[in-house]
Amino acid sequence: MKPAIGIDFGGTAVKIGLVNDRGKLLREDGFATADARGVKGWVDAVAAALERMGLDLNRLSQQVSGMGVGVPGFVDFRRGFIHDLTNVPGWTGVSLAALLRRHFGVRAVVDNDCNAMAFGEVCYGAGRKFRHAVFLTLGTGVGGGIVLDKKVWRGAYSMAGEIGHVSIDMYGVRTKTGRGGLEEYVGIEPLVARARKLLRKRTSILPDMVQGDLSKLTPRHLAEAATQGDSVALEVFDFMADCLATVLADVTYLLQPEAFIIGGGVSAAGKVLFDPLRRHLHERLSPFFAKLIQVLPAALGNRGGMVGAATLVLRG
Amino acid sequence: MKPAIGIDFGGTAVKIGLVNDRGKLLREDGFATADARGVKGWVDAVAAALERMGLDLNRLSQQVSGMGVGVPGFVDFRRGFIHDLTNVPGWTGVSLAALLRRHFGVRAVVDNDCNAMAFGEVCYGAGRKFRHAVFLTLGTGVGGGIVLDKKVWRGAYSMAGEIGHVSIDMYGVRTKTGRGGLEEYVGIEPLVARARKLLRKRTSILPDMVQGDLSKLTPRHLAEAATQGDSVALEVFDFMADCLATVLADVTYLLQPEAFIIGGGVSAAGKVLFDPLRRHLHERLSPFFAKLIQVLPAALGNRGGMVGAATLVLRG
Repeated sequence: MKPAIGIDFGGTAVKIGLVNDRGKLLREDGFATADARGVKGWVDAVAAALERMGLDLNRLSQQVSGMGVGVPGFVDFRRGFIHDLTNVPGWTGVSLAALLRRHFGVRAVVDNDCNAMAFGEVCYGAGRKFRHAVFLTLGTGVGGGIVLDKKVWRGAYSMAGEIGHVSIDMYGVRTKTGRGGLEEYVGIEPLVARARKLLRKRTSILPDMVQGDLSKLTPRHLAEAATQGDSVALEVFDFMADCLATVLADVTYLLQPEAFIIGGGVSAAGKVLFDPLRRHLHERLSPFFAKLIQVLPAALGNRGGMVGAATLVLRG
Repeated sequence: MKPAIGIDFGGTAVKIGLVNDRGKLLREDGFATADARGVKGWVDAVAAALERMGLDLNRLSQQVSGMGVGVPGFVDFRRGFIHDLTNVPGWTGVSLAALLRRHFGVRAVVDNDCNAMAFGEVCYGAGRKFRHAVFLTLGTGVGGGIVLDKKVWRGAYSMAGEIGHVSIDMYGVRTKTGRGGLEEYVGIEPLVARARKLLRKRTSILPDMVQGDLSKLTPRHLAEAATQGDSVALEVFDFMADCLATVLADVTYLLQPEAFIIGGGVSAAGKVLFDPLRRHLHERLSPFFAKLIQVLPAALGNRGGMVGAATLVLRG
């Protein structure tokens, strides 16, 4: 089977890969999201990248099986229609799949970026062994993708998998999406704010790591400090792990997947996150459920979005 | 197609029905659960009931397509194996499907009772119009059944759909199944206890309804008082509705079904439960999700278990 183009449309960068039907990234290019203005500018920048990758736009349909795009926002997968992108202006109500088909003359699919990453992980990453797995990405917010029977579960209207909005406290933080949503507690901002608050009363190596300027604190500093045994950083990760465990327990009781796969920048913390996460999840589940569920770090890293988006075409 | 036998194995009563392939209950019989001791006694009591229903045990396979049983506990559907029944002693580790096949010479399936009810509702009840619906039954605890693509979703190990264990408060009531599980707040006991506590400081028509003996208070009294505008009873239902809405919002964000179908004794409260439930659910969802989700009362009532269990055979 011919390879497919996989596009990971991020808030900062657009990554474009040529991916074969064994999940291998053959070639890669891309551009900064801010450099391409509007939908037209974006399509032109994609075209330029494809040419740099050695593809011939006049005979693209002979070179690739199609084009898959993972985008950071609300998408109707069936129609390939973007309702809205959370952090990229100018992308409200765009029939991107149809536009790409017309412009490039190849099959095109458009999905939410977390769904694409989830599919990549279960096809070629940490979830290869599983038929049913739930993917979470930890960053500014919490994204999710649910895979049942080796297929992305998109729900009745293509909007399922919003794990970041699942409530951990019915009387918790109030937002436009409800109350007590997970990502209000474990997104980068609330986590760093929690550390700053603890630092008012506690000694820690964290202030020295940012030359006393706590506004510079990032999850990377927290991970480094926790790895060195810093009690404030460890407490922040323990809290994060317990919030996540609450939602993973909910999902386990509802869907009973075989595994959770955790990716995204914050998951790079590794052991200081995964150890308490597994422990709290076990505490929050009956033994029947606890003994059967696995929690694994994502395996595809930055390639996940490209590989997943291309694989939506190749296995679609 | 020949009709099937559907058995609703409850903690109090065992209901046995003959159900055709349009979901119609043709004949019905049953016995009190306490009257049949052990597995052997239960099978004998089922046999006697089938004879009372005019079925001939010597040529049962010519009269029916098979036999479906919904049981109140942990089941491995694929193997027709009962791990354990919550409130019925003597039913740990029973290969019921194999036993019924041998004893009656017909195809047999065994499932969790809520899964059977959920399937009945989406085939012939309130969920007929939907492909994706989530069923809840409100009683002593909260049971659930998830239907995706018109099939019961049982998860990787046949234990999915435990909606009663989904947490509404990560630091809430601690039990063997986690912390803050829904049914610890909206089961019959916690609801009635909540009413009793409010009654210490408030005037209400409830004490008169039970001749001053608050130990006799039931959800039926609460429903009647709420319908008459009693502020204590209304507050209890509003709280129950908000707890339920928290979990329905979680499920909507994760799975985005088309509808929730609510059954069980407590759901008979009707408007005083469903009105605040729909209102709180809308408050807890982004408008994109809120406008698409429906909340409906179950339609099959007491027949749901029998009809559903038989239909698991007929459409299996």
